[in-house]
Amino acid sequence: MDAATAIYPGSFDPITNGHLDILNRAREVFPRVVVAVANDPGKAVLFPAETRLGLVRCVLKEIGADDVEAVGFDGLLAEFARTIGARALIRGLRAVTDFEYELQMALANRRLDPDLETVFLMAEARHCFLSSSLIKEVARYGGDVSPFVPRCVADALRDAFRSSGC
Amino acid sequence: MDAATAIYPGSFDPITNGHLDILNRAREVFPRVVVAVANDPGKAVLFPAETRLGLVRCVLKEIGADDVEAVGFDGLLAEFARTIGARALIRGLRAVTDFEYELQMALANRRLDPDLETVFLMAEARHCFLSSSLIKEVARYGGDVSPFVPRCVADALRDAFRSSGC
Amino acid sequence: MDAATAIYPGSFDPITNGHLDILNRAREVFPRVVVAVANDPGKAVLFPAETRLGLVRCVLKEIGADDVEAVGFDGLLAEFARTIGARALIRGLRAVTDFEYELQMALANRRLDPDLETVFLMAEARHCFLSSSLIKEVARYGGDVSPFVPRCVADALRDAFRSSGC
Amino acid sequence: MDAATAIYPGSFDPITNGHLDILNRAREVFPRVVVAVANDPGKAVLFPAETRLGLVRCVLKEIGADDVEAVGFDGLLAEFARTIGARALIRGLRAVTDFEYELQMALANRRLDPDLETVFLMAEARHCFLSSSLIKEVARYGGDVSPFVPRCVADALRDAFRSSGC
Amino acid sequence: MDAATAIYPGSFDPITNGHLDILNRAREVFPRVVVAVANDPGKAVLFPAETRLGLVRCVLKEIGADDVEAVGFDGLLAEFARTIGARALIRGLRAVTDFEYELQMALANRRLDPDLETVFLMAEARHCFLSSSLIKEVARYGGDVSPFVPRCVADALRDAFRSSGC
Amino acid sequence: MDAATAIYPGSFDPITNGHLDILNRAREVFPRVVVAVANDPGKAVLFPAETRLGLVRCVLKEIGADDVEAVGFDGLLAEFARTIGARALIRGLRAVTDFEYELQMALANRRLDPDLETVFLMAEARHCFLSSSLIKEVARYGGDVSPFVPRCVADALRDAFRSSGC
Repeated sequence: MDAATAIYPGSFDPITNGHLDILNRAREVFPRVVVAVANDPGKAVLFPAETRLGLVRCVLKEIGADDVEAVGFDGLLAEFARTIGARALIRGLRAVTDFEYELQMALANRRLDPDLETVFLMAEARHCFLSSSLIKEVARYGGDVSPFVPRCVADALRDAFRSSGC
Repeated sequence: MDAATAIYPGSFDPITNGHLDILNRAREVFPRVVVAVANDPGKAVLFPAETRLGLVRCVLKEIGADDVEAVGFDGLLAEFARTIGARALIRGLRAVTDFEYELQMALANRRLDPDLETVFLMAEARHCFLSSSLIKEVARYGGDVSPFVPRCVADALRDAFRSSGC
Repeated sequence: MDAATAIYPGSFDPITNGHLDILNRAREVFPRVVVAVANDPGKAVLFPAETRLGLVRCVLKEIGADDVEAVGFDGLLAEFARTIGARALIRGLRAVTDFEYELQMALANRRLDPDLETVFLMAEARHCFLSSSLIKEVARYGGDVSPFVPRCVADALRDAFRSSGC
Repeated sequence: MDAATAIYPGSFDPITNGHLDILNRAREVFPRVVVAVANDPGKAVLFPAETRLGLVRCVLKEIGADDVEAVGFDGLLAEFARTIGARALIRGLRAVTDFEYELQMALANRRLDPDLETVFLMAEARHCFLSSSLIKEVARYGGDVSPFVPRCVADALRDAFRSSGC
Repeated sequence: MDAATAIYPGSFDPITNGHLDILNRAREVFPRVVVAVANDPGKAVLFPAETRLGLVRCVLKEIGADDVEAVGFDGLLAEFARTIGARALIRGLRAVTDFEYELQMALANRRLDPDLETVFLMAEARHCFLSSSLIKEVARYGGDVSPFVPRCVADALRDAFRSSGC
Repeated sequence: MDAATAIYPGSFDPITNGHLDILNRAREVFPRVVVAVANDPGKAVLFPAETRLGLVRCVLKEIGADDVEAVGFDGLLAEFARTIGARALIRGLRAVTDFEYELQMALANRRLDPDLETVFLMAEARHCFLSSSLIKEVARYGGDVSPFVPRCVADALRDAFRSSGC
């Protein structure tokens, strides 16, 4: 196990500028950061797991983050973190966030793997209103999402809602 | 655009005494208040959009609020607010409320339209436990909802649950 | 009506060590405690109401709590509490909890029955990350839930997810 | 030790209608309730400990609560609770309250005495804005405090601020 | 009384860019806004009441806000608001704020004057970390406060801490 | 500047088992951790800055943490962090904590030094009720603090309150 590896997990449905902000902060603190896109069959998503992972990779290329890996996973996060040798689990705190839910998850993950330390980083204030679900709602009504997401994602959102005829 | 117009949006599924409390406060502060009933196809509701709008209008007549308009809308709230010339967006704060969600929406709406100012008003303390979903649960089990909603709405709830055979 | 009777209601889908902690505290304070398992048809559950009640009874036997009754109920909680003569309604507070939701329910129940007093007890700190939904997620992925739930429940969870082929 | 005895501790500087509300709820649930007025030399107070205790007793007489005792104490609350045989420690939760501070105190008191159970009761919604410090501020400026406190206390507040020449 | 007048009260010790942000939003919504600088003798302040009022006026001139009046007051806010004919009381909500305290004050002020409606406006996200006390701490250690306060105030802070020899 | 260095600042008046818990987690994640004891003349403390630093060092020796340095500092934290080459600033989150205050400080520190990343770690659940002020209150009344603090600190607290004659 290696203190240098951090895992940044999430649904990323889709990845937003707020996620990117957290990711870039994690890169300042940890030598190796792995973005882990969850494939949770019980959760309603807009994009299938493969597409969400593809968008993360497209965005990493867009910002030139060659040092960051992106992988998909299913099953228990704590177990997956162990397989990639991560000792730190990155979570973003927003000024507007579900703080208590985050603490509950952190305590649960610690119980499942005491060696995996949850590390909370804080997004930029101007990102504190960003959430994937809000952005999807804007996109659904044809609003402009380009201030909120990287270009790859803006394109994917436009396609998703055009093709569904909304 | 006119500083005198305020929009009070919501699902109003159905309108409650708590909503009415906020509405009456808004009327004290703003010369023109428009109640905007959202028709969000992605949200599970008890009453269809038309019925919800009808109940709002029935209640406005019940309390003699001739100065208040009620309209339906779909699409992005920020855009609809612009079309009716509203500069203030009314939101009710309850002592027991999802404060952070409200802030997130306010910041997002500001980003979508910087000229639309979200204005939070506070309900009476005795209304702070009222929510449309709670009232629907009480009605579903045949409980008495008349202390929580105007008469039009109490009748509609009784009919809704009788006809569904619950 | 009898000040000595307390009702401890919930979905118990399934009962956890956190619930047991609260239950045991309630037993210290009240001579008679009734666990009331809600049968709410509108709520998605893993176990049907009968199974959830059976698990509660199995757990009560496991810990030798002969003094505690377990019953199922549907309809309005406030009305059911009256039929069993309960004057106190037990709710567990966790360091990590939906505090505002609890207050809203307490205020609503008081309005429905002013004689039924909601009494909040606090779980042990090490239980503060436990929730039925979290435990079900761990079980779904084949994780070990035995530190979180009594033995009856651990067995039932194993069976539930084996039989569903997950 | 006796499950029937509950202690309701506080500074009571001075006792308010909100405190009385909680006290009356505690009396419904517990056969014996003792109001314990803290004499904490490190805390700035308006009324000395003896006066605060005297006001509590005056108020208990005013409402005819012969069954409630009022005592002063200093030192650790957990230890004092033990000396009077209390097993339940009453705390009031307000819709507007320092919830986290209350949980911290409850956990600390449990550590100091595992047999003393903290029991949270909830004040009436219309009392949720009452705090002793707010009431003192109103009284200091000559505002009318009679809607917020029993008559004994209203008189004491008037005297306190008249004599200090404010 | 006139719906068009809003009062924006506070200690303003000193006024910050966050206060200015709220003030400018209030001006969009209300035809007449009065900044009311509280002279509360019981509160420890850096600047005396007269200086704080002077700084507000200096800042209003700096931004060319001729339409805004600034006045000092002592005593109960609700009473002062009545004397100037204000019907709306402006409070700023920050993403990071003491929300519950604000609600408590709003409910208390409503009880003292039912015709005075508290109206919450929301500061810009990038101002959400600004507080007068934080800025004073930065200034005390010789840090640069110019990104946080108008120029008049930056000068006053520099003088205050230079003259006190810190 | 070096990503490997983290600073863990605080008053440490005195250092508790909760602080130690956070410190040990920081050591797992960062190669170099510096404990920085603030000497803030404006803050009322029980122990003078030198004693607080001495207690931290005593505790570090007690647990054999040779890799951790302890230093005193005054002035702005962001500037001090720069002088020791720290890029990460450690803050402990407790399940029961002043979350919003922490976010405010993190945003302010970022503004003062964009290269200093605040990293939140989470204490063990059973430590979530520990605070220095609570422990001092227990010690003041002669309660047993040994479950809450390292031995050096328990001795110092005993001496402090004996010598002051409390």
